[in-house]
Amino acid sequence: MGTTQLESVPEPKYWHLKTVLTEALDSEFSVGEILPNERDLAARYGVARATLRQALEQLELEGRLQRRRGVGTTVAPPRMGVAVGTSRHTWPGAGGDVWQPVDCVRSVPPASVAAALETGGEEVHIVRRSRTSHGRSVATELLYVPAASVPDLTAIDAPSGPSRARAVLRELHRLELDGQDRAVELGSAGADDARELDRLPGSPVLVLTTRFHAAGRTAALSVATYRADTCRLTFGDSPDVEIHDDPARRAS
Amino acid sequence: MGTTQLESVPEPKYWHLKTVLTEALDSEFSVGEILPNERDLAARYGVARATLRQALEQLELEGRLQRRRGVGTTVAPPRMGVAVGTSRHTWPGAGGDVWQPVDCVRSVPPASVAAALETGGEEVHIVRRSRTSHGRSVATELLYVPAASVPDLTAIDAPSGPSRARAVLRELHRLELDGQDRAVELGSAGADDARELDRLPGSPVLVLTTRFHAAGRTAALSVATYRADTCRLTFGDSPDVEIHDDPARRAS
Repeated sequence: MGTTQLESVPEPKYWHLKTVLTEALDSEFSVGEILPNERDLAARYGVARATLRQALEQLELEGRLQRRRGVGTTVAPPRMGVAVGTSRHTWPGAGGDVWQPVDCVRSVPPASVAAALETGGEEVHIVRRSRTSHGRSVATELLYVPAASVPDLTAIDAPSGPSRARAVLRELHRLELDGQDRAVELGSAGADDARELDRLPGSPVLVLTTRFHAAGRTAALSVATYRADTCRLTFGDSPDVEIHDDPARRAS
Repeated sequence: MGTTQLESVPEPKYWHLKTVLTEALDSEFSVGEILPNERDLAARYGVARATLRQALEQLELEGRLQRRRGVGTTVAPPRMGVAVGTSRHTWPGAGGDVWQPVDCVRSVPPASVAAALETGGEEVHIVRRSRTSHGRSVATELLYVPAASVPDLTAIDAPSGPSRARAVLRELHRLELDGQDRAVELGSAGADDARELDRLPGSPVLVLTTRFHAAGRTAALSVATYRADTCRLTFGDSPDVEIHDDPARRAS
């Protein structure tokens, strides 16, 4: 793969380099292997370091590479399927829920959340939960619960912490769940999420927003932040979509 | 917003700058407005251009800014909810389907698709479709259909093009659909997709993979590529999740 070939193609250089690197990852490197440093790689493929960096960024977006502080750039394992939805609708914290309650505070939610919950400037319960897979944190969640959804929550319950979180969820389960809607979009990890997910602030994340409907209104709103580098979110009744590899990656 | 404030905070500079810029976008700019150029912005906030660029990249990831060739950086409208799934499972191309058939070819699919379809090295039908919203292309799809799923497709049908695509879908509908699974993950736009979606190659995209189950196997596999800057993918029985703003953005 000399300089000549890279210069003769009409597509952007970094794009062609990405394709070349993808082939190299498939044939020459194994999962977990550390890539040569940028200077050596740029020399090997006869490209400027800026071009190399663009190609590496693409491969990171596609989940082929991981860049970690103090380690360097390694070949990523296939993304894991993380089940986020089935046709059966349940409250957060119901049987089989994989999320761990971490904390619960009362606070005024962001304006857009307040609008969805129709709580105006009122404080709501904000339950923080985390989700791990194979011992690693893969997602964090903020679950916003208006006071009106848990009217029987008493002052006797712990004022904060995981016990408080469990008390809020327990009260929530008294409501009859009418249904739920979900939306997935791209986001960037905030400072807190980044720390918990072991990523740099601003890393791409997948944000899954779930609205829980009960008694004719939105009774709770969950904003879950998943690592985009290691996770593919699966929807469906079988626990995992069995394509361990990314077809889009190869098809393009 | 002087230099001093940005230098005294412990979080990364670009992260703090992003927060400051977010506030400015909320209060000083309106949707569609063109931002000052990088040199002026860097001077205004007393940061290096590299720092500014990092912050702008974050805001682009979060859908707050759009960078377009020949236009510059503009304030993005809120992302649109794009419905991608309901509890009712249907074949592609069934009534109410929003996708437009573009083309159909026979080709050997990528290895990972072949594995999911269990077609080995055989050629499959590859239907290309596109999805528009408000007159703009928001997604492209490759639908992989093994010959075994459409045994009665005849040579009389057009050999390629939209007519061929429709013929393949029509034959597919003869099978009884047992169910489907979906997965969403982050990807980067390939050259073809980028052209169709009016993005640069390598732009972040959301890749939705759908497996259609019939007769005890995967009868078809769809790989749909959505613009990540303008779309939030919605799952649920109501057509749209009514949070027009991104709660995660503000919560972080």
